[in-house]
Amino acid sequence: MTLIMATPSEQDVREYVLSVVRAARDASSVVARADTAVKDRVLRSLAQAIRSRSAEVAAANGRDLAKARAAGMEPALLDRLALDAETIDQMARGVEDVARLPDPVGTVSEMRPMPSGIRVGRMRVPLGVIAIIYESRPNVTIDAAALCIKSGNATVLRGGSEAIESNRLLASLCADALQRQGLPRSAVQLIESTDRAAVGHLITLPEYVDIVVPRGGRGLIERLMRESRVPMIKHLDGVCHVYIDEGADPAKAIRIADNAKTQRYGTCNTMETLLVARAIAPEVLPPLAALYAAKQVELRVCSETRRILTARGVSGLKDATEEDWRTEYLAPILSIATVAGLDEAIAHINRHGSRHTDAIVTENYERAMRFLREVDSASVMVNASTRFADGFEYGLGAEIGISNDKLHARGPVGLEGLTSQKFIVLGNGEVRT
Amino acid sequence: MTLIMATPSEQDVREYVLSVVRAARDASSVVARADTAVKDRVLRSLAQAIRSRSAEVAAANGRDLAKARAAGMEPALLDRLALDAETIDQMARGVEDVARLPDPVGTVSEMRPMPSGIRVGRMRVPLGVIAIIYESRPNVTIDAAALCIKSGNATVLRGGSEAIESNRLLASLCADALQRQGLPRSAVQLIESTDRAAVGHLITLPEYVDIVVPRGGRGLIERLMRESRVPMIKHLDGVCHVYIDEGADPAKAIRIADNAKTQRYGTCNTMETLLVARAIAPEVLPPLAALYAAKQVELRVCSETRRILTARGVSGLKDATEEDWRTEYLAPILSIATVAGLDEAIAHINRHGSRHTDAIVTENYERAMRFLREVDSASVMVNASTRFADGFEYGLGAEIGISNDKLHARGPVGLEGLTSQKFIVLGNGEVRT
Repeated sequence: MTLIMATPSEQDVREYVLSVVRAARDASSVVARADTAVKDRVLRSLAQAIRSRSAEVAAANGRDLAKARAAGMEPALLDRLALDAETIDQMARGVEDVARLPDPVGTVSEMRPMPSGIRVGRMRVPLGVIAIIYESRPNVTIDAAALCIKSGNATVLRGGSEAIESNRLLASLCADALQRQGLPRSAVQLIESTDRAAVGHLITLPEYVDIVVPRGGRGLIERLMRESRVPMIKHLDGVCHVYIDEGADPAKAIRIADNAKTQRYGTCNTMETLLVARAIAPEVLPPLAALYAAKQVELRVCSETRRILTARGVSGLKDATEEDWRTEYLAPILSIATVAGLDEAIAHINRHGSRHTDAIVTENYERAMRFLREVDSASVMVNASTRFADGFEYGLGAEIGISNDKLHARGPVGLEGLTSQKFIVLGNGEVRT
Repeated sequence: MTLIMATPSEQDVREYVLSVVRAARDASSVVARADTAVKDRVLRSLAQAIRSRSAEVAAANGRDLAKARAAGMEPALLDRLALDAETIDQMARGVEDVARLPDPVGTVSEMRPMPSGIRVGRMRVPLGVIAIIYESRPNVTIDAAALCIKSGNATVLRGGSEAIESNRLLASLCADALQRQGLPRSAVQLIESTDRAAVGHLITLPEYVDIVVPRGGRGLIERLMRESRVPMIKHLDGVCHVYIDEGADPAKAIRIADNAKTQRYGTCNTMETLLVARAIAPEVLPPLAALYAAKQVELRVCSETRRILTARGVSGLKDATEEDWRTEYLAPILSIATVAGLDEAIAHINRHGSRHTDAIVTENYERAMRFLREVDSASVMVNASTRFADGFEYGLGAEIGISNDKLHARGPVGLEGLTSQKFIVLGNGEVRT
């Protein structure tokens, strides 16, 4: 006789997810009112635990890696899954950094007296329960939990099944640290069911989950967008542009267009399309083409760009298709269009871009101001590399993700994006007449 | 032979709504970059047109009213539909008030230098295309259009079929005023199809509509919540509480509990449940019961409240059921519970309330601060009537609605709630290393 492990029924998975999010809801009101000092002690104690138990973390991660290798996982994904002494220490330092950030919760702003006699202001408060849905990278477990603890939210984490051993241990370190300071363990919980249906439940329980933050590839995000009944802070595409205006300093233009494309190829704030004003194209395109050629960046160009570069003896160019203008390559590929000037550049960006990050290079004040105002993206830059679009570079301290949405939070989302503001009214017995 | 009017097919309605929202999307980028002075001229010119053409407005409204009366509409609804010289002038004044408000668009805040050399700040920008879905009251057409114009958004208005003649004329006045200042007429459009399917399309086109603001009864909102694929700024219920703490000044407590319930019965910020601390109940409940009795307010009470009031000879009390604690009466009915103290009051509010507006009456500093922090509602008050929860009373100038949601905007939503913030980065050729 063979023992057969029963797969959990659809009903069991739902009950399990419900029990987790209910516990999170209960915990959320406790962490919401926790003092800054208590939350910071939790974080410092968590950092210490990550360090003192790094061998165990590495061992759990080793088990995940062994399974993944046996299952034939690609090297790039194995790389994202792997934790070593250095990345484990980085997690600990990240948690300590979050502990040092100012606590947004309870901040009162804009307190003003009104003609009726009442005083009206706004107080920052946590959102409540935040579900984080992510793939591969186990460090997200710690990064996300730290930001949620500091911002007074309860977290429900759903990592990839390939990282389950690492995530389970890391989440338990968070729960232990909460408990040591008298806060509920269930303020940080990991969904341990690797059943895909668990995610489906998590994103359709708006009574218990206030916000979903997905971190992963386009496939994951699109699926969640279709199915989620809970608001999301999400990041879909990074089709970022640099526009070199005719008023650009050529040296700055070349430096920025180089850095924005080649500093890292796989990040969402990497430039995917370069736009160049006709008047300056003959001056900046040839040196840029040489630069990109030296770094083996494939160029997909419009007909005018081809004409300009071919005249200078540049070869190996491909023709850009309509599809190229809206593609996030995440690879050493760049599309280039020569445009008449600012109007055409802005129109191109607002039409084909993904509202992520776009930069103009110019010394012309009026065009810089118009670009800033009229480009409808989460981050709009003058004379800086798109690669700066990042929570650390923006001084947010850390980020839970980058939002392409317009409501609530745009661009890198730090602690403040995990809170909202309620109105508070201080009176002295006033009534309305 | 009889002529048969073809009812528009489902496909026709969809095509029509698509043409409207596409035109709105195109117009949105034009109004987004309109100067404050131009937008204010549109508004002042609109106000003038409302006044100079008030006879036409009244006539169109008269046709709506005649049809509604013939169809047997209830007097309360007829009342909401009716415009007279006074309400028409009120609309004009409302538009002038919006013209006088500061323009949020383009405001840059928190500009700070970063260690990399870049400067990072946030710029307020319009949301884009806002769909307003409302019932009966034709003045919403003007109020909403004015707020959207000032905040640089394009608007798509979908009023009730009963107000179609009034709304059509009012929307055309908006379009005329936009055109006179060189802005696109399609920045304010009315969905003229009274087909219910039109709403279904409007709320499922996130490519063209950035946000939906429903204004109407619970039935409308619940339907939209189920079907909308577009984020909403919505207001569901107003189950508002006043908690009279044992540290309350009895005179203030009585004045506030009277005003919060009886100043107006039908508004969302009217108190529906009164909570009284056991220690002060015998002192404040009897005079309040007398006050409410004089105004024919029906009382639905917990057993302890009944005991206290019956001992003082109060009769005519009803027993509150579990259902009462979560009911928005919008009527001269009040539920009353006697509670042990602050903890029980906060637990009751967070459990049964609708996160709208809740007030404590107390002279105790610590309990006032705890109530402010721990009650998870859009507006939390100390020693003031819940009736103050209102855009005008909060100094927002006007409101498009009141939000019970936690993301983006909580409580009264004014011009700022119709905008979001993007990051702007000012550099001098910086690249990331």
